[in-house]
Amino acid sequence: MAGNSFGNVFKLTTFGESHGEAIGGIIEGCPAGLEVDMHAILMEMQRRKPGQSAIVTQRKEEDEVQFLSGIFEGKTTGTPIGFVIQNTNQKSRDYSHIKDTYRPSHADFTYDKKYGIRDYRGGGRSSARETACRVVAGALAKQLLKQISITAYVSAVGELRLNKPYTDLDFSEIEKNPVRTADAEMAKEMEHYIRQIRKEGDTVGGMITCVIQNVPLGLGEPVFEKLHAQMGKAMLSINAVKGFEYGSGFAGTRLKGSLHNDIFNEDGTTQTNNSGGVQGGISNGADIYFNVAFKPVATIMQSQRTIDSEGNSVEMEGKGRHDPCVVPRAVPIVEAMAALVMADFWLLNRLSKI
Amino acid sequence: MAGNSFGNVFKLTTFGESHGEAIGGIIEGCPAGLEVDMHAILMEMQRRKPGQSAIVTQRKEEDEVQFLSGIFEGKTTGTPIGFVIQNTNQKSRDYSHIKDTYRPSHADFTYDKKYGIRDYRGGGRSSARETACRVVAGALAKQLLKQISITAYVSAVGELRLNKPYTDLDFSEIEKNPVRTADAEMAKEMEHYIRQIRKEGDTVGGMITCVIQNVPLGLGEPVFEKLHAQMGKAMLSINAVKGFEYGSGFAGTRLKGSLHNDIFNEDGTTQTNNSGGVQGGISNGADIYFNVAFKPVATIMQSQRTIDSEGNSVEMEGKGRHDPCVVPRAVPIVEAMAALVMADFWLLNRLSKI
Amino acid sequence: MAGNSFGNVFKLTTFGESHGEAIGGIIEGCPAGLEVDMHAILMEMQRRKPGQSAIVTQRKEEDEVQFLSGIFEGKTTGTPIGFVIQNTNQKSRDYSHIKDTYRPSHADFTYDKKYGIRDYRGGGRSSARETACRVVAGALAKQLLKQISITAYVSAVGELRLNKPYTDLDFSEIEKNPVRTADAEMAKEMEHYIRQIRKEGDTVGGMITCVIQNVPLGLGEPVFEKLHAQMGKAMLSINAVKGFEYGSGFAGTRLKGSLHNDIFNEDGTTQTNNSGGVQGGISNGADIYFNVAFKPVATIMQSQRTIDSEGNSVEMEGKGRHDPCVVPRAVPIVEAMAALVMADFWLLNRLSKI
Amino acid sequence: MAGNSFGNVFKLTTFGESHGEAIGGIIEGCPAGLEVDMHAILMEMQRRKPGQSAIVTQRKEEDEVQFLSGIFEGKTTGTPIGFVIQNTNQKSRDYSHIKDTYRPSHADFTYDKKYGIRDYRGGGRSSARETACRVVAGALAKQLLKQISITAYVSAVGELRLNKPYTDLDFSEIEKNPVRTADAEMAKEMEHYIRQIRKEGDTVGGMITCVIQNVPLGLGEPVFEKLHAQMGKAMLSINAVKGFEYGSGFAGTRLKGSLHNDIFNEDGTTQTNNSGGVQGGISNGADIYFNVAFKPVATIMQSQRTIDSEGNSVEMEGKGRHDPCVVPRAVPIVEAMAALVMADFWLLNRLSKI
Repeated sequence: MAGNSFGNVFKLTTFGESHGEAIGGIIEGCPAGLEVDMHAILMEMQRRKPGQSAIVTQRKEEDEVQFLSGIFEGKTTGTPIGFVIQNTNQKSRDYSHIKDTYRPSHADFTYDKKYGIRDYRGGGRSSARETACRVVAGALAKQLLKQISITAYVSAVGELRLNKPYTDLDFSEIEKNPVRTADAEMAKEMEHYIRQIRKEGDTVGGMITCVIQNVPLGLGEPVFEKLHAQMGKAMLSINAVKGFEYGSGFAGTRLKGSLHNDIFNEDGTTQTNNSGGVQGGISNGADIYFNVAFKPVATIMQSQRTIDSEGNSVEMEGKGRHDPCVVPRAVPIVEAMAALVMADFWLLNRLSKI
Repeated sequence: MAGNSFGNVFKLTTFGESHGEAIGGIIEGCPAGLEVDMHAILMEMQRRKPGQSAIVTQRKEEDEVQFLSGIFEGKTTGTPIGFVIQNTNQKSRDYSHIKDTYRPSHADFTYDKKYGIRDYRGGGRSSARETACRVVAGALAKQLLKQISITAYVSAVGELRLNKPYTDLDFSEIEKNPVRTADAEMAKEMEHYIRQIRKEGDTVGGMITCVIQNVPLGLGEPVFEKLHAQMGKAMLSINAVKGFEYGSGFAGTRLKGSLHNDIFNEDGTTQTNNSGGVQGGISNGADIYFNVAFKPVATIMQSQRTIDSEGNSVEMEGKGRHDPCVVPRAVPIVEAMAALVMADFWLLNRLSKI
Repeated sequence: MAGNSFGNVFKLTTFGESHGEAIGGIIEGCPAGLEVDMHAILMEMQRRKPGQSAIVTQRKEEDEVQFLSGIFEGKTTGTPIGFVIQNTNQKSRDYSHIKDTYRPSHADFTYDKKYGIRDYRGGGRSSARETACRVVAGALAKQLLKQISITAYVSAVGELRLNKPYTDLDFSEIEKNPVRTADAEMAKEMEHYIRQIRKEGDTVGGMITCVIQNVPLGLGEPVFEKLHAQMGKAMLSINAVKGFEYGSGFAGTRLKGSLHNDIFNEDGTTQTNNSGGVQGGISNGADIYFNVAFKPVATIMQSQRTIDSEGNSVEMEGKGRHDPCVVPRAVPIVEAMAALVMADFWLLNRLSKI
Repeated sequence: MAGNSFGNVFKLTTFGESHGEAIGGIIEGCPAGLEVDMHAILMEMQRRKPGQSAIVTQRKEEDEVQFLSGIFEGKTTGTPIGFVIQNTNQKSRDYSHIKDTYRPSHADFTYDKKYGIRDYRGGGRSSARETACRVVAGALAKQLLKQISITAYVSAVGELRLNKPYTDLDFSEIEKNPVRTADAEMAKEMEHYIRQIRKEGDTVGGMITCVIQNVPLGLGEPVFEKLHAQMGKAMLSINAVKGFEYGSGFAGTRLKGSLHNDIFNEDGTTQTNNSGGVQGGISNGADIYFNVAFKPVATIMQSQRTIDSEGNSVEMEGKGRHDPCVVPRAVPIVEAMAALVMADFWLLNRLSKI
């Protein structure tokens, strides 16, 4: 209700402000008996971590996850998994300049109006720091979904677009370049462009594509809990996301039905996959694929006019160490949220037949 | 959980198959004391109804709503509002040809795989007939949100695109043309095109834009229940929807932050509205606007190869009276879902401050 | 939230006022493929129905259930099961005398204060008529739980107490007498007493005991969703219920641990069953048994002083045809709610292990 | 779903095993702007803490709560309040003797059967240590409900019964004696009895009565979410609770309606309060009062026969430091759960009228 939870049965609830004591969460509904690969969780956290390459924020965040419950002798016990990530780098003083000032296109203004009070240290609750908790839970969800593979990559940075369908790409390229795109040539161009943007003190938007493979038939629930509807919500809940499309997406609006329909093969697979692996909200066994649109990060290293809480016009400039382009670090977050959605529907599907 | 409900506190739960006895639902959480305008509900139902113009399906569905509870002497009582819409036009025989055949790009196959059983009369539960219930609830939500205005219109049919921003359009045009677009000229073109598509026995996709005005500050909940995330889910749960974007959307991925940021005026409004009225998941008082992508209707009046439940290749042709383009009739559905989202967040916001 | 739903995954949501058009509900989460025995549902409805014997209310309610969805060719399809029970006997005029008067120990006053409006025809939403919907859903839940047997019986009417443990009773007696107690002798005494109470224009309280047998191990969820906690809520949500105890119950407060502990046999069963079949909120395979306390029906056929909505003191006398003792007709309601709880936990338990 | 949460809008979710790293939780839905009295929270924790007097367990648990989020400059911010209580006293070795043995009337056996795995250190998740988190959240809820007073006291220890109605008792006595009963004489008797029980290495059951005063009209939701139904669930979810009754309770089953009905005064109050402050599930402004039955603690310092996980008969004796009678320490837990229920309904009631 209050918006801190995601999932029906495999459920993550999070807490924490960017510059409070700690962030953390509770993972519920992970079945008992799962052997937990702590190293794999750590690896996912590394992928999201600031400071991992020259083109992302140079903030230092250790992001060390401490599990407090629900795992015993290396296995899940069926009880809730509590975890905490200390905020080791609480430099509240960095943010005193925004105490009474509303940063443009941030949530400072709306939080103040909604709650009448705001933790002004960094983005507080609205900071993307919160996504670290999603990566923890997503990493666990991935382990639950051993047979399903979830792969995201950067498909656009500003005007630079990776215009090939995912089937023509080599996913093994993704983690070889700091942009996390699936093409070595494009990776260089994008990296170069992001460096240039950073020099300008500016930021730029981008796009992430995600592909889910080896999906069992029958995942997703009819009507309001359609697989793609919940997936869309998952993605749109990530900071800076402005759009979501799956399968043929917005381009499909231009097509005729005779061309768009996916004709069945005799084994139940289809000749094309405009449906994006989902029919009527339920997985059909084909690859699920979708695009997620990210706006440019709002914090720029340039002077901007804005207002303070009294309504006075003031001049401000971003401080601190921010990402010039958020998509490289958002790749593991997209995957994590996708994993949460899939784990939830995978478990829910146990309830569909007698 | 099972996917039949939408909303946290203003909540709709629906039931019903396209060719069963009836469809219907329960609306919970509507506060007591609301004077219900039955005529306004009827008008919304008329907008969604088949057979309303030459360019939509000519099926006859009376869609008469019968309210069974929760309204007394013209006012809501705070108790659940049950309603039923009889399926007066149950021609089950029309559908016997699909009993054992999976229509391409429909949910026949996935329902069979998920449940091991399927109501093969029409789309069963996956039919868009279910959206009639959404319109009932949405019409009530609109009455609750008297000060908020919600307006949707068709912004694309196939390649025909209404390329003006909504601020340059005349919303009073929308209900004057059967396409429900906001431009008289474009309306004619689109209508002509849809008629042509229908003659071909084909269908075509399209896009709907929705604008929400006079929105109070502070609606939406942080992190996972962001206003735009829940709105995206609402839209993606509508049959045939493939994408959702709000504010600058996918186009915003191309921009730099220095250009994308919405600079504040001294009164707290902003000079631009790339944010689409939402910051950090919470309404900032500016117009909320978004686009919804619809794929072409899967039922076409042309012969297609497909398979039966045994995996044999068969030939099939759409029967019945289907929409050549779904967007004109989807306009009130988009508005209804938007109203459900807004009513829910409007009520939830009563809980935010002490 | 608004209180109209019960259950997590096997879920009933109801609507309806006692003298509105109809009451009804939606059953969600019943797995697909269950063959529905309509006759068995009808039989349960008959057990709850007014007018079934001389010692219950002589109101006429047909209570004919009409299923509108979710069942196809005799089987559940996994989609929501909508149902309606028409209120054929809407004699609103019978109730005009209470339009502005608050009946003692009814919910008239509290509904008015909470909502500022009240459907004054009969008890409106607070009427026990609503329990008919519970019996419908419970009857279905029983069919899902084929191996589990759920048996309730009247264990007290006023001072008349059936002081034997359930293991010493013959359950086959229960449906042979109109009181629904499990002892032929006691049945006569109780029936006689209820007839006398009715002659006095008075009412009397009573108690129902419920026994659940052949329970699988492992049902129930830890901490807040303990099997007995949810069972208690289920029972306490029934009109007129004032108390719930399971296993050793209130009597157990007098015992020492050395006497109260249930010592294990080598096969995992226990020598005693003070635990009432539940340890730590989870079923241990032994019989679950509990008592439910019902207050005397508040509507009496005697003159009482009360107040009207203006706060004036007025004289009133119950009209209509009410139960002198509610417990005989509440037996199937207790069983229905128990079945809902068990079905829910039975399904949830599919999620506990990997 | 998984049972770790309590409440609809004011919601507590907990995690943690008795001998894991830490226990803790997330409190959601506390409105922004509440000044938090940390000392008051500490005081409540002290009341629940082991070792506080000679008649409770002498275990050392520091129970220091660390708040990690959601409180800023002394006030709630509307964001989730995460908290952690370290398990400073993790003596896992104390419990190795129960690794493969099922303690009688504990949850060892049922957890093993449900999950196939169990954290055998102490009670793991089923330990009453978890209730510390309830006290934290309840203490906050009390602060939200400034005008409402919630008072619990011990009303029975074994056969020793405080047979006066609460209205004849002096609540200021409660915290003056280690038993937490509301009568100085009875306190001595009970204390003496508990000391004797402890010497025997045995335990004994008891009862707690709770009284809620100055309750606003209109709290509680109809049908399934009745105030007393949720209150009953709250109480029954506490470890060792076997029964719940409110108002006239089980004794009310013996009464006639003419005697049981609460006759209105002209100001809307009633001459008697058999209803226990609740009519139709909604508060009527009168005192809410109820009894909670606790069984004797299962861990006794005597030798008992039991079985190991292989089904072999073994002898075991309780080790560690356990409560001879749980009720003195359960008083603040009962109050905490009552506060959670009331806070939830108090907030929900903001949604009832337009």
